[in-house]
Amino acid sequence: MSAIDPRDVVARKRDGERLTEEEIRSVVLAYARGEVADYLASAFLMAAFIRGLDPEETVALTRAMVESGITLPLEGISRPKVDKHSTGGVADGVTLVFAPLAASLGLAVAKLSGRGLGHTGGTLDKLESIPGFRTDLSAEEMERQVDEVGCAVAAQTDDLVPADGALYALRDATATVPSVPLIAASVMSKKLAVGTDLILLDVKAGSGAFMKTVEEAEALAAACAELAAGWGRRARVVVTDMSQPLGDAVGNALDIAEAVEVLRGDRRGRLAELAAEFASAAQVVLLDLSEDEARARVERAIASGEAVETFGRMVEAQGGDPAVVDDPAKVLPAAPVVVPIEASEDGWLAQVEAEEIGRAAVGLGAGRARKGDAIDPATGIVFGAKIGDRIRRGSSLGEVHARTEEEARIAADRVVAALSVSEEEVEAPPLVYGWRDAQP
Amino acid sequence: MSAIDPRDVVARKRDGERLTEEEIRSVVLAYARGEVADYLASAFLMAAFIRGLDPEETVALTRAMVESGITLPLEGISRPKVDKHSTGGVADGVTLVFAPLAASLGLAVAKLSGRGLGHTGGTLDKLESIPGFRTDLSAEEMERQVDEVGCAVAAQTDDLVPADGALYALRDATATVPSVPLIAASVMSKKLAVGTDLILLDVKAGSGAFMKTVEEAEALAAACAELAAGWGRRARVVVTDMSQPLGDAVGNALDIAEAVEVLRGDRRGRLAELAAEFASAAQVVLLDLSEDEARARVERAIASGEAVETFGRMVEAQGGDPAVVDDPAKVLPAAPVVVPIEASEDGWLAQVEAEEIGRAAVGLGAGRARKGDAIDPATGIVFGAKIGDRIRRGSSLGEVHARTEEEARIAADRVVAALSVSEEEVEAPPLVYGWRDAQP
Repeated sequence: MSAIDPRDVVARKRDGERLTEEEIRSVVLAYARGEVADYLASAFLMAAFIRGLDPEETVALTRAMVESGITLPLEGISRPKVDKHSTGGVADGVTLVFAPLAASLGLAVAKLSGRGLGHTGGTLDKLESIPGFRTDLSAEEMERQVDEVGCAVAAQTDDLVPADGALYALRDATATVPSVPLIAASVMSKKLAVGTDLILLDVKAGSGAFMKTVEEAEALAAACAELAAGWGRRARVVVTDMSQPLGDAVGNALDIAEAVEVLRGDRRGRLAELAAEFASAAQVVLLDLSEDEARARVERAIASGEAVETFGRMVEAQGGDPAVVDDPAKVLPAAPVVVPIEASEDGWLAQVEAEEIGRAAVGLGAGRARKGDAIDPATGIVFGAKIGDRIRRGSSLGEVHARTEEEARIAADRVVAALSVSEEEVEAPPLVYGWRDAQP
Repeated sequence: MSAIDPRDVVARKRDGERLTEEEIRSVVLAYARGEVADYLASAFLMAAFIRGLDPEETVALTRAMVESGITLPLEGISRPKVDKHSTGGVADGVTLVFAPLAASLGLAVAKLSGRGLGHTGGTLDKLESIPGFRTDLSAEEMERQVDEVGCAVAAQTDDLVPADGALYALRDATATVPSVPLIAASVMSKKLAVGTDLILLDVKAGSGAFMKTVEEAEALAAACAELAAGWGRRARVVVTDMSQPLGDAVGNALDIAEAVEVLRGDRRGRLAELAAEFASAAQVVLLDLSEDEARARVERAIASGEAVETFGRMVEAQGGDPAVVDDPAKVLPAAPVVVPIEASEDGWLAQVEAEEIGRAAVGLGAGRARKGDAIDPATGIVFGAKIGDRIRRGSSLGEVHARTEEEARIAADRVVAALSVSEEEVEAPPLVYGWRDAQP
């Protein structure tokens, strides 16, 4: 038993006082051990939500969360280690491209990932659409694969930051989710529990993201950068656009096919651009290169085929068919019904309710409405139009891949209804709003 | 199922918004039915604590709490009905005097009371020190007795405002107790659930009270008066001094003996004065008398013996020995050890830690440290000195009534240590800080 009474800690935060590291630690670890009841923890969360947590308190909260479980030091890996994480969006397949790309550039990417929920897809689900692909790697398997191949993507286990899972579920049930310090601690705790030389964090802003405005995303980005710095870890945090789906594919097998095309250099666009941005940002820090040198190496890795071959090696190492990089259509599951999405008016694409497109894909079975739901790896949406594009009534904006004609029609209608078309020319939104660096 | 999601209600209060009556009702009644979990209710309480509840929200909370259980309309009673409640203090035996006094003046007092906890005593415990006295009256028994005798004091049952018990326990466990609107709703819900023509509320201020300062007590008094008015009920709320024990007796049988002396007119002082104050305040409103007429009737009821005889009739009606009013010492249990409390220095009594005297009585077995503890009806403290009194080293300040010499000595030392004596003359604090009226 700690000498600190958790109720006194809650009372101090309730009254707007600053908590000590020891006070925060005592409440969080006691909660993780089951010694503090849910009702006291939720009172703490509400007090922290309303009164706020300053940067030092946020570091203390994050440290306590990490301390609640195991950590992954990854000490056996000799290459410079980089982790990349996104706060979640629609058609956000950056990790699928980034991991093999960075590995082909001499970096190590040991990526722990989660499953999709709601309108956002999950990297694990996407990779598992490749027949045979395993994501349940042990820490040893992961470390060995990263040392040999340069990258691995595995499922995050429950013993890594268990306090985060418990606190997140409680926040979801008690209206205490949208708090910048609480989100920052949740996001960063899982990155800080893994021993890497650089954390790249992509904070999404817009209709398909958790943070709907750039201002909110900037606040979260600042809190995450400050948290990494306060912890003593190197991090680069960027706010990027999620006012529309990033790539074209919103599904699972569809995303793998898209990633292969990007890695081959056969597909340009915002997804390819952002993956290159991250690979360059990592090299600048970890390989001490200029931005131009870093960009040139990315181009070469793609043009030479090294990037896509590294993806093939990762797929093979994790039990999947490496032929997916040569002929995705032959390896990946295909949906029985494919229908075009047709523009219903003339003009310039002005707005996309990205979240609604994500939900339309969930409706096709490509994602989960509730945790634990099964997903259909073959279904989904390919939506190629971007804000600013000139579109014409009746022209194709993409395709729906569905199990039935009925489901396909519903999804196509939802996608079209999620669009706003302007009679005036519309400018494309920026892709990257700005980086900030955390120096320990 | 309500159409209102309790999480949305919590989120609105979290963001400082004003809740509707329907929103508050849905959360509180769902919690009382077990449909809202403790953790969500505690998040609500913390949000309400920090953001506050305005008078209309406080009325809505109180209405929902009352709606969670049965009410006691008391419609069969023909006399004007008055309820009197104190927020709790030390040696606060006003109810014991007030109930028969008001009854002897033609009013009806149907008093539901609680047991003592911590440093504050409970009216039920005191009355049960009279052998045979029953407090478990049914609503029908109570109503019949009040109609015949004019007063009854019975135990509050669990089905009256059950939400209050549940919410209070949760607040105690989640650092959400000291909130004026939450306290006001808790205090007043139990009064408003009983059908009376006037509620008299005594908000105590000082070292022996929950509210340590007059300012805090005034804030609670204002909230309670506003709540009664918002509900449409007549109430008079007064802030009174609890910087020292009100009467002399801090125990159970000792309090009954003291009350009998006051009712007989054999003992003057602050307890007698406050009981007269309440009896007058009730008559002014319910019998439409002037303050002077009301005071005169109180004097006469005591001088004529009607007040003490009414107490005897109430005791007899509830199964106790009415001889307690003629010879309390013969009827009431007595402690085997009685030792004097002696002043340790010369001067004027300047301060009394009333709460510590209450705790010393708990140490003697006269009160409960924890809910459900047994109490010893015979033990306690009689402490006669009041702030401003001239005291002399070695002179008697009162007596400890104990089970053993050892316990008596410990309690006597605690009482003496709880006193501050000044070398300068000290003025007695006011007894009554001021009334406020709630008009529907």
